[in-house]
Amino acid sequence: MKEHDRQSTAPPSRTHSRTEFDFINKLRQVTKPSEHSSVVVGIGDDAAVIQSQAGKDTVVSTDLLVEDVDFRRTSTTPMLLGHKALAVSLSDIAAMGARPRWALTSIGVPENIWESSFVNDFYGGLLALAAQYDVQLIGGDTSSTPERIVIDSILLGDCASGAVIKRAGAMPGDQIFVTGFLGGAAAGLRLIERGAHLPSEGSDDLHLVDHVMLRQLRPEPRIGWGIVLGQERLATAMIDISDGLSSDLHHLCSESGVGALIDSSLIPIDKKVADLCGRRALDPLQLALHGGEDFELLFTVSANNVSRLPRRVDGISITRVGEIRNAGDGIKISEGSRVWDLEPGGWRHF
Amino acid sequence: MKEHDRQSTAPPSRTHSRTEFDFINKLRQVTKPSEHSSVVVGIGDDAAVIQSQAGKDTVVSTDLLVEDVDFRRTSTTPMLLGHKALAVSLSDIAAMGARPRWALTSIGVPENIWESSFVNDFYGGLLALAAQYDVQLIGGDTSSTPERIVIDSILLGDCASGAVIKRAGAMPGDQIFVTGFLGGAAAGLRLIERGAHLPSEGSDDLHLVDHVMLRQLRPEPRIGWGIVLGQERLATAMIDISDGLSSDLHHLCSESGVGALIDSSLIPIDKKVADLCGRRALDPLQLALHGGEDFELLFTVSANNVSRLPRRVDGISITRVGEIRNAGDGIKISEGSRVWDLEPGGWRHF
Repeated sequence: MKEHDRQSTAPPSRTHSRTEFDFINKLRQVTKPSEHSSVVVGIGDDAAVIQSQAGKDTVVSTDLLVEDVDFRRTSTTPMLLGHKALAVSLSDIAAMGARPRWALTSIGVPENIWESSFVNDFYGGLLALAAQYDVQLIGGDTSSTPERIVIDSILLGDCASGAVIKRAGAMPGDQIFVTGFLGGAAAGLRLIERGAHLPSEGSDDLHLVDHVMLRQLRPEPRIGWGIVLGQERLATAMIDISDGLSSDLHHLCSESGVGALIDSSLIPIDKKVADLCGRRALDPLQLALHGGEDFELLFTVSANNVSRLPRRVDGISITRVGEIRNAGDGIKISEGSRVWDLEPGGWRHF
Repeated sequence: MKEHDRQSTAPPSRTHSRTEFDFINKLRQVTKPSEHSSVVVGIGDDAAVIQSQAGKDTVVSTDLLVEDVDFRRTSTTPMLLGHKALAVSLSDIAAMGARPRWALTSIGVPENIWESSFVNDFYGGLLALAAQYDVQLIGGDTSSTPERIVIDSILLGDCASGAVIKRAGAMPGDQIFVTGFLGGAAAGLRLIERGAHLPSEGSDDLHLVDHVMLRQLRPEPRIGWGIVLGQERLATAMIDISDGLSSDLHHLCSESGVGALIDSSLIPIDKKVADLCGRRALDPLQLALHGGEDFELLFTVSANNVSRLPRRVDGISITRVGEIRNAGDGIKISEGSRVWDLEPGGWRHF
């Protein structure tokens, strides 16, 4: 990370209570690499430097989060936002079957936000999650923005050479699995859209609300599963469920050149979503299929490797939801004896 | 690069003439890694993957560019903006003495911009510069924004293990050099602020105007010098001049724990800046010292290595501008027999 280093058409401002340099120096102390770290240069130079390791591949992802598109300042907290900014990128690395190692986080904020505790709290949330997975913050960029907050979260990971799990690779006959439970993040988003706040005091179903709102605002990436599936070479293809099961299955099938049949009765719908939906006339299956942002992993395993799968990793179970078919069979979902096309119904940006 | 994969509080929009997926697929065709490339996974998966090489270090930088802070849409073109987004990151990698290799570019644009040729032209400018230095675009993220364009430019490079040139490392007695000529980008910015446009038809000094405006809008990173200084281990410390010579010298000296004496008569002021300044009552030395965004390299060389420096690399000369002193001597500039403190006068963001 370095101080922002470009000229603006506005004159430089020099009257602030703390400078970018002070902030970066503080962050630098907190994130100082240890002597035996693979980090050669961390925060504070023109770029970060890490030692390459023979026999490894380096995995890199980037996620751009824009205020009022990807989050609302009034619906979250700076710490939760810091957590989520890193979590979405951790999930990308997990979806490659790799181990997350190093983060660079760029953040642009309006001047009044800079003067508040926002940026400190944002990095507080981010660094707490980073510490949980032994990820080091090694760089980034800070900038001012005219109005809205913007964040770019960059994550580097590694895995054994050639062990990466792509979206391509699923074969007809492979079994389709998902980690955890689906629909929670979408249910949380619906509640936020309807005005729910954290902490949601006075609610008669506080616990349920908090659970699904935290699924939306504080996603937990499936790092452990990603590493196990990559190390043991158990998955033939993988993607994280960010757009929604239906959309992300389409992505995986498209890359693999295959079709799929999902059994709707197998989909692990978040129990608390089902409870909440009953009270609010929402369809839990629709949320689980198309909702998005659950950041669970969707992966395929050849039939003869299914028995090698662990039942749980880090306390997270997996569920078989269907089978890969030939491309000509299309992407379908069965409900009892009925079968229909599973259209991608998740998020699409433009 | 992947399609944007987060939920918004706004409903997904599905009526556009082209989707994000179409765009990314097109970009993917154009950037497809060759079979013998070190790129294992390029655009189109959850993350990009590159093979690590034994005996190398990986260098990573990121630069956030925000509309109306770092650029104005009306003062540049989409192709120039694409060029500059990559150039500022290339300059960071050069400043580490490394070779740029792989780029990931995230871009968020308002919907009306998405529907225009902007994004195509932006990547056109970016890919043209990437091709010039054999840099591969391997990923990124696309997003919509409510109003303003935002870009995050991520660049990975490599160098021989341990060969990276940090801001720290300059020793008293080392000679201070800069590549190229200074002040052009700042002069260009002044002209843009005063309403100059590209192409600046009808101007009586079209050629001069174009030169300095292009220094601002289309910076040329000093890749060749970065690689030579890194490979030959000729520089003891290095930084790129993005904030301005005075500020960036302060950064280098602060990291190295040294002072410096600059001789103002040695500073290589852009000849065309001097010409323009004469007509516009600007001080060329002030622009060269404090202006910023020239993206030249500022580096230090131990006295007994000075004779080993090449005179030119890729047609770009270097100039000795002063000498590193003890920290206690401060950071000074001489003009004839007078010597005074050189205050950091470049860009400071908050």
